[in-house]
Amino acid sequence: MSGHDLTQNSVLALLLARQSVGIKHLTEPGPDATQLRAMADAALRAPDHAGLVPFRFVVVQGAARERLALLFAQAARDAGKDDAGAALDAERAQRAPVTVAVLARLDAGHPQVPVHEQWACVGGALTNLLNAAHAMGFAGKMLSGAKVRHPAVQQAFCRPGETLLGWVALGTPAKSPQRGHDKPRAADVLSDWGG
Amino acid sequence: MSGHDLTQNSVLALLLARQSVGIKHLTEPGPDATQLRAMADAALRAPDHAGLVPFRFVVVQGAARERLALLFAQAARDAGKDDAGAALDAERAQRAPVTVAVLARLDAGHPQVPVHEQWACVGGALTNLLNAAHAMGFAGKMLSGAKVRHPAVQQAFCRPGETLLGWVALGTPAKSPQRGHDKPRAADVLSDWGG
Repeated sequence: MSGHDLTQNSVLALLLARQSVGIKHLTEPGPDATQLRAMADAALRAPDHAGLVPFRFVVVQGAARERLALLFAQAARDAGKDDAGAALDAERAQRAPVTVAVLARLDAGHPQVPVHEQWACVGGALTNLLNAAHAMGFAGKMLSGAKVRHPAVQQAFCRPGETLLGWVALGTPAKSPQRGHDKPRAADVLSDWGG
Repeated sequence: MSGHDLTQNSVLALLLARQSVGIKHLTEPGPDATQLRAMADAALRAPDHAGLVPFRFVVVQGAARERLALLFAQAARDAGKDDAGAALDAERAQRAPVTVAVLARLDAGHPQVPVHEQWACVGGALTNLLNAAHAMGFAGKMLSGAKVRHPAVQQAFCRPGETLLGWVALGTPAKSPQRGHDKPRAADVLSDWGG
């Protein structure tokens, strides 16, 4: 097998192995500044019709995690959770070494690119950010849910007109993640035209 | 440098090098059935809140390309293009060795996952499909535009409730693509919270 084939195989293996790792299984370190830039560069290679770059990332790390924890706790209480529930949500912000907010900045009136294509680009960017993190030995998961729509949370992250998709919690996996057993397979999503 | 580091570097390099290659630069072969399955498996590793799998792929190859060419030509004429314009659109369908339609199957009333998150998943799936193709030595580009909304095109690809995002044209790149010069850089999309 040639070196080129080996590289192909390892790249495919990596793409096929990436999966979410829960925050309780994430330890230090998270990606450093250079690694975060590589992740953002990978995000910028996602298909982007007309080159709109309809996304940006905001990094929460170090002491800023406390501030995010307070916001998560407030959103949890306002959603009717009790103190234990709020503490659990706060811990998610405190525990991940690095949390990256994913913001969509959409052009709703673009003549060629409908908004759903722009959302697809945001998702491609997020996917490549995670692929690059995984390639460098990190793991993580996407956080979203009702708290992305909490006014204080939106004010803390969104510039005017932006939408908060969610956050990527990132760190070093404490153990090798178990491959899920109930994942759909290629045959479920692939067919020939007219077949 | 360890073998692990080498693999990391080659994976990152691959993610950072992927870019669209125009149909006129695509030659035979396209991905075969096994390679298409690997691409679909990679697509299934994109972040997918609640595991909805809000996408599927339909492969157009071989003789079916003539049928797609007729559809593209019809859509072009109905959009007001002349014969030369219609022929140009038809050729895009005929020339790519393999064309993969990307269909979104969205759950508009899902209690946890808003539709924009589902579109982000579709975009992540598309991005990983392209990443896997690139890892196996293929290249291609996404086609969309007004023709995805032409009634005959939609009828040819969409099951009830589905939305056609577009098509990925795939083949072997005839030459190494030139790296674009005006790509945005990580610094344009990455910032620290509160910074």
